[in-house]
Amino acid sequence: MDRSARFISFEGIDGSGKSTQARLLAERLRDAGREVVLTREPGGSPGAEQIRRLVLEGDPDRWSPETELLLFTAARRDHLERTVRPALGRGAVVICDRFADSTRIYQGITRGDLRATVDRLHDLMIGCEPDLTFILDMAPATGLARARGRNGSEERFEDFGEALQARGRQGFLDLAAEFPGRCRVVAADRAPEEVARDIARLTDEALA
Amino acid sequence: MDRSARFISFEGIDGSGKSTQARLLAERLRDAGREVVLTREPGGSPGAEQIRRLVLEGDPDRWSPETELLLFTAARRDHLERTVRPALGRGAVVICDRFADSTRIYQGITRGDLRATVDRLHDLMIGCEPDLTFILDMAPATGLARARGRNGSEERFEDFGEALQARGRQGFLDLAAEFPGRCRVVAADRAPEEVARDIARLTDEALA
Ligand SMILES: Nc1ncnc2c1ncn2[C@@H]1O[C@H](COP(=O)(O)OP(=O)(O)OP(=O)(O)O)[C@@H](O)[C@H]1O
Ligand SMILES: Nc1ncnc2c1ncn2[C@@H]1O[C@H](COP(=O)(O)OP(=O)(O)OP(=O)(O)O)[C@@H](O)[C@H]1O
Ligand SMILES: [Mg+2]
Ligand SMILES: [Mg+2]
Repeated sequence: MDRSARFISFEGIDGSGKSTQARLLAERLRDAGREVVLTREPGGSPGAEQIRRLVLEGDPDRWSPETELLLFTAARRDHLERTVRPALGRGAVVICDRFADSTRIYQGITRGDLRATVDRLHDLMIGCEPDLTFILDMAPATGLARARGRNGSEERFEDFGEALQARGRQGFLDLAAEFPGRCRVVAADRAPEEVARDIARLTDEALA
Repeated sequence: MDRSARFISFEGIDGSGKSTQARLLAERLRDAGREVVLTREPGGSPGAEQIRRLVLEGDPDRWSPETELLLFTAARRDHLERTVRPALGRGAVVICDRFADSTRIYQGITRGDLRATVDRLHDLMIGCEPDLTFILDMAPATGLARARGRNGSEERFEDFGEALQARGRQGFLDLAAEFPGRCRVVAADRAPEEVARDIARLTDEALA
């Protein structure tokens, strides 16, 4: 297998279908005989999942944006060391439900204008990007309606509201322009199988 | 009260008397009518204490040095925002049992040669130093014997052994030379009252 495009991330606003499409792509690649590690952020390793709980539970103002950024970066570092790098090292495809781009958007743009700090911290402590990033694009109202259809105890980041989701959407589109080599914007307000078909095609092109 | 020398830290190897001397200095300044906030790292605010538990409990190799550094920095940021800065802002003296110098020594020197990374992360996310730092100096064997005389469940960093404590001791002495403006080395292998007397005198000089 080609060394390129083995680390794939899914990004996009809440409810845009990241977890659904990550799972569908993993199934498809497994059916094609590849080893796939399907993982997520924040979390994805035992230590990072513990940090995730610390960040996502509790009051909305429990942590400042800067402290939260440090906690997310600690979780990412652990996830990279214990899950992502070992899997890539043995030739598996790693599919990650959210990665550093979510931090760039949510901590960097919607929370405290920290983007420059996010970038410097990323360069210092993380220093790698996925080979391929799918940005699932849709209107915020559609994503919010889908996300509200689910339950969950990790409510700290739910319901930022439509205005903030709109900023997030534009932030992801801007990121796609900033990192054109690895980012692919996919229209996500369609039936899951249609979205999955485009993602499959773009993955095949990148893996080729 | 002078604005200088209001943030005071205690540093030194395990068992060197930091907690004892921090308490004695706090008592003395309170007797003199000052408001004193006596705090510690890692910890010192509700969030930072939770991060402390995450870092200090469990297996010794639970976190890599880099992840640990990020967690300590997250705890420090929270401690600064929620405890130290508010206290300084209302004119209190803050006495902190360990601060960033402990990270420079233990993460930077004894664990993975991370000192340059420690410094860059500090500049990016912390960006302040105490006004006055007491470095309690003693032979590692003396400190280890004292530390072993106590109990505690947070055993991850106990018993690095005498060789590593010796590197730590020299690291703290080197730091004192690197930051001569704020650091005072105090011989700590004496009776607590004798050590406290020198610390009181040096504090008065700095507060003057
Ligand atoms: N293409 C689709 N059309 C309609 N509903 C969908 C589609 N894709 C996913 N859903 C449903 O919408 C909800 C959100 O999808 P999913 O959990 O995959 O989104 P997400 O981007 O992972 O959300 P979050 O950011 O909250 O984790 C789920 O209930 C899912 O079943
Ligand atoms: N000057 C001293 N002479 C003898 N024993 C002391 C002296 N100062 C402190 N001790 C005792 O030594 C032990 C360690 O002291 P202390 O807890 O103050 O050190 P510490 O630097 O805070 O240690 P640690 O790094 O483990 O937190 C305690 O039992 C304390 O009572
Ligand atoms: Mg999801
Ligand atoms: Mg102590």
